[in-house]
Parts: sequence; structure tokens; C-alpha cells
Amino acid sequence: MVSHPHNNEHIDDEMVKMEVNLDDVPGEWLGYVMDLLFEAGANDVFYTPIYMKKNRPGVMLQLLSSRHKLEKMKEILFNETTTLGVRYYPLTVHRLERQFKRVETAWGPVTVKEGYYQGLLVQRAPEYEECKEIAKLHRIPLKQVYEQVWKKLDQDE
Amino acid sequence: MVSHPHNNEHIDDEMVKMEVNLDDVPGEWLGYVMDLLFEAGANDVFYTPIYMKKNRPGVMLQLLSSRHKLEKMKEILFNETTTLGVRYYPLTVHRLERQFKRVETAWGPVTVKEGYYQGLLVQRAPEYEECKEIAKLHRIPLKQVYEQVWKKLDQDE
Amino acid sequence: MVSHPHNNEHIDDEMVKMEVNLDDVPGEWLGYVMDLLFEAGANDVFYTPIYMKKNRPGVMLQLLSSRHKLEKMKEILFNETTTLGVRYYPLTVHRLERQFKRVETAWGPVTVKEGYYQGLLVQRAPEYEECKEIAKLHRIPLKQVYEQVWKKLDQDE
Amino acid sequence: MVSHPHNNEHIDDEMVKMEVNLDDVPGEWLGYVMDLLFEAGANDVFYTPIYMKKNRPGVMLQLLSSRHKLEKMKEILFNETTTLGVRYYPLTVHRLERQFKRVETAWGPVTVKEGYYQGLLVQRAPEYEECKEIAKLHRIPLKQVYEQVWKKLDQDE
Amino acid sequence: MVSHPHNNEHIDDEMVKMEVNLDDVPGEWLGYVMDLLFEAGANDVFYTPIYMKKNRPGVMLQLLSSRHKLEKMKEILFNETTTLGVRYYPLTVHRLERQFKRVETAWGPVTVKEGYYQGLLVQRAPEYEECKEIAKLHRIPLKQVYEQVWKKLDQDE
Amino acid sequence: MVSHPHNNEHIDDEMVKMEVNLDDVPGEWLGYVMDLLFEAGANDVFYTPIYMKKNRPGVMLQLLSSRHKLEKMKEILFNETTTLGVRYYPLTVHRLERQFKRVETAWGPVTVKEGYYQGLLVQRAPEYEECKEIAKLHRIPLKQVYEQVWKKLDQDE
Repeated sequence: MVSHPHNNEHIDDEMVKMEVNLDDVPGEWLGYVMDLLFEAGANDVFYTPIYMKKNRPGVMLQLLSSRHKLEKMKEILFNETTTLGVRYYPLTVHRLERQFKRVETAWGPVTVKEGYYQGLLVQRAPEYEECKEIAKLHRIPLKQVYEQVWKKLDQDE
Repeated sequence: MVSHPHNNEHIDDEMVKMEVNLDDVPGEWLGYVMDLLFEAGANDVFYTPIYMKKNRPGVMLQLLSSRHKLEKMKEILFNETTTLGVRYYPLTVHRLERQFKRVETAWGPVTVKEGYYQGLLVQRAPEYEECKEIAKLHRIPLKQVYEQVWKKLDQDE
Repeated sequence: MVSHPHNNEHIDDEMVKMEVNLDDVPGEWLGYVMDLLFEAGANDVFYTPIYMKKNRPGVMLQLLSSRHKLEKMKEILFNETTTLGVRYYPLTVHRLERQFKRVETAWGPVTVKEGYYQGLLVQRAPEYEECKEIAKLHRIPLKQVYEQVWKKLDQDE
Repeated sequence: MVSHPHNNEHIDDEMVKMEVNLDDVPGEWLGYVMDLLFEAGANDVFYTPIYMKKNRPGVMLQLLSSRHKLEKMKEILFNETTTLGVRYYPLTVHRLERQFKRVETAWGPVTVKEGYYQGLLVQRAPEYEECKEIAKLHRIPLKQVYEQVWKKLDQDE
Repeated sequence: MVSHPHNNEHIDDEMVKMEVNLDDVPGEWLGYVMDLLFEAGANDVFYTPIYMKKNRPGVMLQLLSSRHKLEKMKEILFNETTTLGVRYYPLTVHRLERQFKRVETAWGPVTVKEGYYQGLLVQRAPEYEECKEIAKLHRIPLKQVYEQVWKKLDQDE
Repeated sequence: MVSHPHNNEHIDDEMVKMEVNLDDVPGEWLGYVMDLLFEAGANDVFYTPIYMKKNRPGVMLQLLSSRHKLEKMKEILFNETTTLGVRYYPLTVHRLERQFKRVETAWGPVTVKEGYYQGLLVQRAPEYEECKEIAKLHRIPLKQVYEQVWKKLDQDE
């Protein structure tokens, strides 16, 4: 088990949520914008379907970012979408302590991300990308990989 | 109460549902397409949010039409959207007998559409457009107009 | 008509909205989490479909709570969902004066919740649970129960 | 392990899907309609958000039912919703063989539903209602109950 | 090219977002409410599908407004919807400089709205209503009108 | 311009739509399933948010496939999701004639897919992947690449 000191449980009140409503951008551009925003350091980016005026199905882009990346995010949003305005407001995030553990499976090791709330283990999540690589390489169902990770996790304890 | 002979309860098995997935059309065009499809005789047109490949928020257009208008609908879909394919399948519709009744309110008459299932009254719906006109003209809440229509409906019986 | 003094119209600026994005929790757990949050005193809890990275259909849980229940809500969210972070921000709620009235129907009394805005009656809503019980007991359509409540309401005035 | 002969893998081509678009029914009625449809034998009932004409957020009710319950379903839909028409079309369902297994946990037994595809075990799902009862009774997180069921499942094999 | 001095790029921190959850209002009223809110000066109004308690499909109305129109918006929301509470929180909007340009097409002139970010042109959007009028009048596809506007735009530069 | 004889306009009545409702699968698995289904030859795969019993936010997976790949699709769905049943029904697809054209931009050539309806050009779509590569390589906004493709397209005509 590896401990990361900077992964301690903490409350971050330097975050912002940014929002943009889009009714005149093709959906195919939006997958690309999501990638750019993550690469530029957004903590999360997601889309919600919305019903806009004049019977327009639209999309609300929401992103979470630390306050000091606000200008970088605006730059991407204005350059890559069709919006004429970006709105935002501050919010607070309570993040759990994170630890990373390695679990041995029949197909090799998998990282499991753990979350601690007030010192107690409450979350355990096998790393998706690693499980996916194993599933692809060994041509087995992804869920079978997850199942084995959980089983091995329990045996270690 | 006015009876429309062609509004009898019936089962129509000459209907089709048509579907188009769209991920590269701006939402603002879709309100317009909806209008054109209704004008051309579609029985209903509606949009559903869908999640498409490559993280694209998309829209599925669905429409209901009688089979003999299939070609007309295709023509609009191919000309006005960006799709390269339209899919469709037959379906059956069971429609209630419809009657139209007039109700007097303090602001004038309003039509109420009634639905009869096996001869029994099961649905009553004040006409939205008429209620809306009254609400606008008299600057009263729309829900107040509906409430009075329902009240008067009950007194007539 | 019964008046509840603590149900006066007021502006509450001690509220928070909390949000959690979920892409690795089975939907069937989420109905249960909603129940727990309401039991612990959340004012409202609801889900929104969201499109997350890597083509994942996800769910955003949103809840409204008074600020002093923030820790209790976090405890449930961290223990019952799979999230590693909970975000929140303050908001203000303007609530109408509420009164409760009893209406006699052919099947017994039903409570109607009323809302007053600056002293004027603007909302009237029959209590869903009571209407549902009547509908089930007497094997009549729920909408018929509502209709009779509205009718009786109007006759009392 | 208990085998149910009538739970064999099979292809059922006596099913129908029924659909109703609703834009004038309060959402609170729809939870009730869902219950009634399940009680009357619907195989599944679910709602999809749709965007309807005149900027109306609507709901499409979809249900799956065997063909011989079609009339019963129509009766509920016409009596309990506000629709003037119900549409439907036949579909085929391929269902897996189902078996039910008991697993002992620290808090008592839990049923696990298994699905077999061409004789091979592909699905295992702890029964939600049983896990929920344990979670409530012992005041432990629901996910902890699921985790223990999965762990015990693996040890039995 | 016409410059509007009051259309300069700016950051507006006098905005609020207002939200209302609705589970007992017919969808057909909501198109009307949207119109009223826009007429009263809302900067944007849109709906999101939400999943509420007791299996109710609901709708969250969201609107953006300047802070000094807060009371006007509340008045419409309380009078025209069925809500007993309205929530809101402040937010900041960064708006681009806007300019309006005229483009000549084969069917007459069309206005194009431009957005400038830090002095650079980043957005160009043909006015939907003008394009729609041309499409209707000349019975040509709407997308053909847009295409010609874009083509002419490029030739002017 | 290159013509593909097998890309002629045609009506295909050998297609099926398959559907699966999911309420107990983590969203993160679903991005992976989508990839597998496309790789196995699905014509399209997409997700719709649905509201299921017991307050569960769920997801409906829909896929379009030719009838002769039905068994392959079932195999993936049963192995990779948690479903105990897959439903499907036949449908017809009208596909446009497709042609592929090359357009020279300042950053190199881009393919444009064209759609012909009864011999007339109705659709033109720059290939997303090629535009994206250019945008990334030259660090320019994706929309700028699309704009130049459209401009060059028009000049060629």
C-alpha cells in the first residue's frame, strides 16, 4: 500500500463550476472540446441535455476547475464552442484521502484506488484503464476482470 | 356537444415510426424541422437526448406518420437534416373516440377535447391554444384559466 | 382551514446544494440512497442524466439541504455511493406561506396544500399519498380522485 | 442451487412494446401508473424524457408486455393517463436461463440470481430487496452488503 | 460593420441563476411559462429532465437573470407554475464583444452576429429567424441558406 | 471525386434494432461495451437515459445491426453487460448514395462525405477524424478547420 501525502482528505474552496448552453454546435465537436478541457486541467467535464427556446434540443456543458485555471478554460470555451458567454460560480469540494493499492490477478497486477473518509476506508475502485487493457489482451469480459480484482482484494484482508 | 363521425374509436395499423440519429446538426435547426414535419402531416414529432460514440451528445428524432406519407417525410428529413439514413418500422395505434365540447368561462368559451374508451368518457383536455389566448388577453395566470374550465365542466354535468 | 405559524412566507439563506457525479455505481443503489437522504432530512434529492468522459452515461445526484445538515449528508454520500468527492455551494430559497385545508370527497376527506405569495393564494395541491390511498382502496383512477378534489375545492369558495 | 424448469433459456416472440407520449400529465401521477402496470403483469415499464412541440418537456412511457395482456395494459393506460392514443409493435425477447442460489453472509442468507447463456454462467446479481433489508436492519452501507455477497459467492466456487 | 458601444466584452457579476423543480405541472404549461419569462427579460430559460422521488419524472426549470429582475421572475414562477419554493444563487458571466454584420445572399441580406474575445473574432452566427424566413419564403432547405451565408461571409474577407 | 458502386442509394430491410435496459451496470463499463459492439460490426450504438422502477436512473442501450450479425451482438451483450434478456425487432433503413471528395485546405487535404438523395446532393460532411488531426497538429480551433473546408468546397463548385 502506497501513501501519497498530497492525497490527504481536505476541503478545497478554491474551485469554480463553469457552464455554457449550446444550441448551435454540432454534437461531434463536443467530444473534442471535452478532451481539450481535460488536457488543460479541468477536474471534470460533463454534458446535460437541455430543452431550449424555439423547440431546440440543446446541451449544457459543465466543468469543474480550480479558480486559477479559469482564464485557460474560458479561452478554450470561446475558441472551440460557439458561445457568446460563459458563466461561473465558486463552490467547495470535500475530497477523501486517496491511496493506491496493487492487486495481483491471474492476468497481472491491477491498481485499486481507495478512498478514506475520516480515516476509514469507504471506497475501492479498480482502475478502469488497466482492467480494460487486460480484458482486451486476454479477450475476456471486462466484468470478469473486475470480479477477480474484488475477490483478490478481499483475500488480502 | 358536437360528434365527429370520423373521430370514432379505432385501431389503425397503417402507421410507421421513423427515426434519425443526429450528432452533427445544430439544435437550432431542429425546432424548424419539427414545424415542417408537422405541417406535412406527421402525427407526432419529438426528440430524445442520446449518448453517441466519441463522447458526442446527440439527438434522436422520432416521428409518427401514416404509411402513405412515408416518402414525404423522408424528403424533409433528407433535405433539412444532415442524416445519411432514415430508419422506420410499422406500428399499430389504438385511438379513442374524440368529441369536442364548449365550456363557458368568465372570459368566453373554451373547447374541451374528450376521449371515450369503449363508450366511456376517460379523458378531458381544455384546448391549450384557446386557454393561452385568454391568459394573454386578460393578463391572468394560465393555470387559473384551466381551473375555471374544469370547474365549469363539472357544473355542466 | 388550519394555519401553521412556522409555515409563513420567508426567505431562507441557510441552504446548500450538494452535487455528486456518479459513473461507477449501479442505478439500483441510487433509489436506496435517495431514501436515506430524505430520511436524514434533505429538502429535496433528484438525479439528472449526464454524459461523462470515455462515453460513460452517468448520473448527477443533486440535493438541497440546510447548511447545518451538511456533515450528515456527506456521511451518507461517502458511505453509500462510490464518490471520492462531494461539492456544494450556498443558495437562497424563497418559500411561500403554506396552509392545509381539508376537502370532503365521496370517498372521504383529502388534505389540500395551499401556497400564499404575498398574502394571495397561488397554489393548491391535493396530497398525493391520500389521493393514492383512495384510488387503491376504491379501485378508481387516480385522476378521478384529483378531479373530485378540485371540484369540491371550488364549491367551498 | 435450485433449478426452475420454466426458467430455461428461450426466445419469446409473443411480446409487444407499447408507447405513450405524455405532455399534460403531472409527473407525480406517473409513479403510480408504473406501479399499476407492474401489478397487472407488465414485464418492464420505464420513462424517457422527450422534447415535444411548443417547447413542452414531455415523457414517453414505454412498457413491455406479453401480447395476451395487451388489452389489460390499454385499459390502465387510458384510465390512468391523459392519452388519446396508445401505440405498439411486436418484438422478440431472448431470455437467459435463470437459476437462484443462496449465499450465507454474516447477516443471514441472500439470494443471487444467475443467468446462463448457452449453458455458461454469465450473470450473477444479488437480490436488491434482500440486500436492502439487511442494510436497513443492521445500519450498514448497502454497498458493504453487496461486497460481502460477491466475496462469499467466490469462496463457494 | 456596425459597432455597438454597449456590446463591449465585459464581466457581469450582477447575475443570478434561479431554479424550480416541478413534478406536478403539465408539460404543456411549461412552453408558455418560458415565453413569459423571456418577455419579462430573462437572459435564458431552459429545462432539464430530472428523476424525482416516488418514481416521478420531473423537470427542473433554470433561468438566468440580472439580479434586479429577481422579484419579477419570482412573481411569474409563483403565479404560473405550481411550485411552493424558488431557489437562486449569484453567478458571474463573461460576455464577448458583439458586432452585427450584414451579408448579401441570393435571396436578400442576412444579419450575422459576431463575437470578439480579447479583440479577436471567435464566433460568427447567422441570425436564425432571418434564415428561417428566407427558407420559408423561397421553399428551400434551411441548411442551404446557412451554407450560402457562410460562403458569402468568407468571400467578403 | 471517387464513386463507390456499393454506396448506391438503397433500401435495406434486413436490419434489426436491439435494446437492453440496464440498471445494475456501472456507467464506466458502458463506454467499453460500445467500442466492442462497433468493432463487431454494429451500424450504430447509443444510450438513452431512462427512469426505471424503484427510483433507479437507468440506461437503455440501443443498437442497429444487420440481421445476420444478431447472434454476435447477443454474445457481446450477454457477456459484457448484466442483462438477463435482449429484445429486438426488424426495421427498414433508407440509405443515401455516398460519395467521397477531397478538399485541399491550407493544412492539407480533408475528405468530405457526400450524400445523394434521388441523384441530388443533399448532405456534405467533412470527416471528423481528419479535421481533428489537423486541429491538434496545428493547434487551431476545430471549428476553424471545418470553416475552411466548407469555404473550399464552395469554391470548387
